[in-house]
Amino acid sequence: MDLQARLHDLACDRSHGASELARLALGVAADWAQHAPAESPADLLAALHGLADQLTATRPSMTSFLTLVGRWRDSLASLRDQTLPAVRETAARTARAGIDQSLTAVRDAARHATTVVPEEATLITHSYSSTVVEVFRQLRGRAIHAIVTESRPRFEGHHLASQLGEWEIPVTLITEAQLGLFTPRANLALVGADSLRPRGTVINKAGTSLLALAAHDHGVPFYVCAESFKRRPASMGEVELEEMDPGELGAPESPGLQVANIYFDLTPPRFITGWIDETGITPGPAVP
Amino acid sequence: MDLQARLHDLACDRSHGASELARLALGVAADWAQHAPAESPADLLAALHGLADQLTATRPSMTSFLTLVGRWRDSLASLRDQTLPAVRETAARTARAGIDQSLTAVRDAARHATTVVPEEATLITHSYSSTVVEVFRQLRGRAIHAIVTESRPRFEGHHLASQLGEWEIPVTLITEAQLGLFTPRANLALVGADSLRPRGTVINKAGTSLLALAAHDHGVPFYVCAESFKRRPASMGEVELEEMDPGELGAPESPGLQVANIYFDLTPPRFITGWIDETGITPGPAVP
Repeated sequence: MDLQARLHDLACDRSHGASELARLALGVAADWAQHAPAESPADLLAALHGLADQLTATRPSMTSFLTLVGRWRDSLASLRDQTLPAVRETAARTARAGIDQSLTAVRDAARHATTVVPEEATLITHSYSSTVVEVFRQLRGRAIHAIVTESRPRFEGHHLASQLGEWEIPVTLITEAQLGLFTPRANLALVGADSLRPRGTVINKAGTSLLALAAHDHGVPFYVCAESFKRRPASMGEVELEEMDPGELGAPESPGLQVANIYFDLTPPRFITGWIDETGITPGPAVP
Repeated sequence: MDLQARLHDLACDRSHGASELARLALGVAADWAQHAPAESPADLLAALHGLADQLTATRPSMTSFLTLVGRWRDSLASLRDQTLPAVRETAARTARAGIDQSLTAVRDAARHATTVVPEEATLITHSYSSTVVEVFRQLRGRAIHAIVTESRPRFEGHHLASQLGEWEIPVTLITEAQLGLFTPRANLALVGADSLRPRGTVINKAGTSLLALAAHDHGVPFYVCAESFKRRPASMGEVELEEMDPGELGAPESPGLQVANIYFDLTPPRFITGWIDETGITPGPAVP
């Protein structure tokens, strides 16, 4: 197992969302528990703590990543008196159980989200969220129409549109610039989240706040569907809004030109009709 | 002079704004006045009326185009009793005078716009407006910073950024998706317009309404700078929001996928701090 290569992949991954990356990290943890070189249980636990530190350092802004890796790390404390094979086995099993918990939370959150969707409905969403994809998966067969932004600069909306196409859910693909035109045509707006601040501000793909503004202005309900692992405790510190390679925008060079490529923006609670997680729906202040 | 080719170019032009296209149309009118085949003044006037009809049919949504071509057409009535060379000469001169009036109006509107810009300021704008470009031209040498959207799908923002670079105005280029992040960093938002409805709703490049929403939410003044020729009288009928080739978005084909490419959106008066034209500034309801 080439651990450094896998850590590097996690650090550079731009295509998976926060939930999926957290599960990938736990997969690395499970594999490393079984394959890390170690002469003794103490050796192995030191290696696994080291891995947990390296993992959290790769994506410090991704709350679910920190939460799930942190829980796994905490679980290691109870293994101190076990044999080397038992530590390997238990640490790997705990990591895989974390993956299962995450997947179950996504499914349960999505199930709650489907209850706010009218029988026949147009949903508008922004960017690609694996949790929102799960909502659409559960809505298959119903008279649902999706409005999907292309999501510059990396066009994750194309990926979402093609996934929905496989499920025979009709899609209208728009530029972010058309959000003001298309939001009033939707019955509700539904987005995922990278993280939630303690008071519920949503950190999600840049452009989410524009969808929220347009939804609020037009009286369209705006829901956020995100597992509770994404709620960031104050103890974890502020999220840094990651800025990526400006080259991704493909702008020609020009004197005095600076290109900004910040991936995330903030949507405050006042625009949110409801936060949905695996435990249910918490109403927000934005009642349309 | 290949009239049909020039009419076709006007009809298909996606790179010039409403003001520039109106002037290009008057340029065609001036040339046709001098070169249209005609045996008599009545012949020529019929040809010029025919041209005016063809011109207005090419861009029925562009108000300044209809206004300026309409005024030129109206001016032809007074030429009925003149000689053929006099009709050619006067009709061409009137068309060129319309071009000059348009240019003067742009310069005067821009001059009024500069009065709302603080001595040191960051201006945010969307898409490419030749009127807004004229504002920046007049602001050269002042401590001005511009935030410019790339403006999908045709990236007019690149063109604007390169123009501002030549004038040594520093530019931050952003995706439309980052409007929520960058609008609060600006001292004011300034856009042009394709048309203004009778009560002042702005019809401009899709995304303008999102900038207006974000500006309003963050208490950033939002100004529209557009010559009075762009104000659409009720008698001209509603503007149709033109939808262009969906292929411009470059989305991969996918079953059930419809791509929307509507070029314009609507910004209602409640988000507007001021309408600026060549006569001065009319305050709007959005006082930050």
